[in-house]
Amino acid sequence: MERIVECVPNFSEGRREDVVKAIADAAGRCEGVKVLDVEMDASHNRSVVTFVGGPEECADAAFEAVKKASELIDMNRHEGEHPRIGATDVVPFIPVSGVTMDDCVSLARQLGSRVGEELGIPVYLYEHAATSPERKSLPHIRRGQYEGLKEEIRSDPERKPDYGPSELHPTAGATVVGAREFLIAYNVNLSTSDKGIAQRIAKTIRESNGGLKHVRALGFYIEEKDMAQVSMNLVNFHATPVQKVMEAIEEECTKLGVEVVSSEVVGLIPQEALTDSAILYLKLKEFERDQIIENRLRE
Amino acid sequence: MERIVECVPNFSEGRREDVVKAIADAAGRCEGVKVLDVEMDASHNRSVVTFVGGPEECADAAFEAVKKASELIDMNRHEGEHPRIGATDVVPFIPVSGVTMDDCVSLARQLGSRVGEELGIPVYLYEHAATSPERKSLPHIRRGQYEGLKEEIRSDPERKPDYGPSELHPTAGATVVGAREFLIAYNVNLSTSDKGIAQRIAKTIRESNGGLKHVRALGFYIEEKDMAQVSMNLVNFHATPVQKVMEAIEEECTKLGVEVVSSEVVGLIPQEALTDSAILYLKLKEFERDQIIENRLRE
Repeated sequence: MERIVECVPNFSEGRREDVVKAIADAAGRCEGVKVLDVEMDASHNRSVVTFVGGPEECADAAFEAVKKASELIDMNRHEGEHPRIGATDVVPFIPVSGVTMDDCVSLARQLGSRVGEELGIPVYLYEHAATSPERKSLPHIRRGQYEGLKEEIRSDPERKPDYGPSELHPTAGATVVGAREFLIAYNVNLSTSDKGIAQRIAKTIRESNGGLKHVRALGFYIEEKDMAQVSMNLVNFHATPVQKVMEAIEEECTKLGVEVVSSEVVGLIPQEALTDSAILYLKLKEFERDQIIENRLRE
Repeated sequence: MERIVECVPNFSEGRREDVVKAIADAAGRCEGVKVLDVEMDASHNRSVVTFVGGPEECADAAFEAVKKASELIDMNRHEGEHPRIGATDVVPFIPVSGVTMDDCVSLARQLGSRVGEELGIPVYLYEHAATSPERKSLPHIRRGQYEGLKEEIRSDPERKPDYGPSELHPTAGATVVGAREFLIAYNVNLSTSDKGIAQRIAKTIRESNGGLKHVRALGFYIEEKDMAQVSMNLVNFHATPVQKVMEAIEEECTKLGVEVVSSEVVGLIPQEALTDSAILYLKLKEFERDQIIENRLRE
C-alpha cells in the first residue's frame, strides 16, 4: 500500500493573498507533495492549506511552509476572530494510507524539533503527539492566545514548550504541532422535512449522548433540498466506519418511519474509508487488501 | 486516476516449468508491468499468466511473452485437454482503472498487428475487439483447433485472420487477441446448509434465467463450512455492481427466510468494484472520484 500522509497547517493570515500563496508554494515545491486546497478566511484572518504526500516529504514541506510563514507574518500586527498563538498556528499530521498514528506522531516530533532549533520558534505538541494529558487539547495550549502567552511562556513552567526557546519568536509567536485522525464530514439526507427527526437521530447516534464513538452529529433542515439532514463529523473512521454509521442511522429511520434518501461526503475522504464500508456491507470474509489489484501493483 | 490494464494470456504449455517461467519473465521484464500470478495446469497442458500495468506497457509485455512462447512451444508436439490453436492461445486485455474498453480494443489491435507482421503469426480478434459478430466468440474462432485450422485457414475465406498470414506459423500456430471485462469470482454464503435454497437464489438472480445482467450463478453446498453457497462470476461489474448483486441476494434471502452470513472474493478485484459498492450502499450523491484523496494525489 502506498504511504500517504495528509498535513493541514493553519496560518494566521487570511487577507493578503500573495502571502498565503507564498506559504502554500513553499510546501508545494517539495517533491512528492501535492497541495490539494488553500482556504482563506478574511474575517478570521486565517488560512488553511491542505497537502498530501509521503510521510517524510510532508514533514519537509511543513517545515518549509512554517519557515515561510515566519518570514512573512508578524503576529504583533495580527488581528482576527479565531484563537491563535503564532504565524503558523497549528500543524496536524494525519495518517491516510499505509501509515500509523505512531508514524504521524514521529513526524510531529521531527517537525517540532526542527522548528524549535532551526527557526527558534517554541513548539507545543498536541492530540496524539501530546506529552501530557492536558496538552492533547488545542484550546488548552492556545489559552490566552499570542498576547497572553507572550508573558506566561517565560514565567509559567506549565507553559514551557516541548521544543525551542521558552520565549515567543519576536514575529512568528509559537506553533502547535501534532497528529490526529482524518475527519470525514458526512451528511445523511432523510425522506422528511421534519428537522426534529434529524435531531432525534443525531442525538441517538452521537458519542456525546452515548451513541457511536467518534461521531459528532447534529440535525438540520436543509432548505434547498427541503429535507431533514443528519450532519456529522466522523473523527475516526477506522474505529467507527462509515458503514456502521449508516447502519445505525437506517435502524433509527426504520423506528421513526422515515428513509435515508442520499448521503454526501463534504470535501475529501480516504480510499480506505470507502473500501472498509464496502467490505463491511458485503460481509467479505478472509479478504486481504492485496486482493485489490491496485494495492498489488504498488507492493 | 491511475491507468491500469490487466492482461491474462494463456499459453499451450502446462508441464515444462522452465518454459512457462521464461514466458512470464519475458513479460515481467518490461518496465511498468507486474506479473501477479502464473498458473500451470498439467492435464490441460496450459498455463495462464496474469500481469498488470500501464496500457502501452501491457501491450509491450504481451508482445514479448507471445514472442518467447513462439520460440519455445511447438504446437505440432502439443497435446492437452483444453481447446487451443496456438503457442499463445489467447490474449485478453482488461480495463481495470482509468482506461476504457475502447482503449483495450486499441491495445488488442496494436498487439495483433505486431504479432502478425513481426512474428508471422496469424491473429484473430475476439470479444470487444472482434471484427464480426461471430468472432466475438472464442469457441467459434477456435473450432477445429490447431490441427483443423491448419488446412482451413488456407482454403476457407471465413477463417482469414485479422492480422498476419493466411497460414499457420509452423510451430506457434495462431493466436486470439481481444478485450473483455474484468471477471470477479464472488461467492455468498447463506445461513442454511440447504443446497436447494442456494440453487433457487442462483436461478433467480442469474442472467440466463432472466435475472441480473452479466451475472452467472450456481448454488452449492460447501462441506467445510456446512453452508449453502451462491457461487458467481460477475462478468461486468460496471454494468452490474457487486452491491446490486448483494442487494438482490438479500431480497431473495428475506423471501426464503435465510440470511447472508458472509461473502468471498476469489482472487483479484479492481478497487473500483469496491468503491462503487460503497458509493451505492451509502447512497452517495454528487460524489466525485477526486474526493478520494488517493485519486487526487495521482491526478
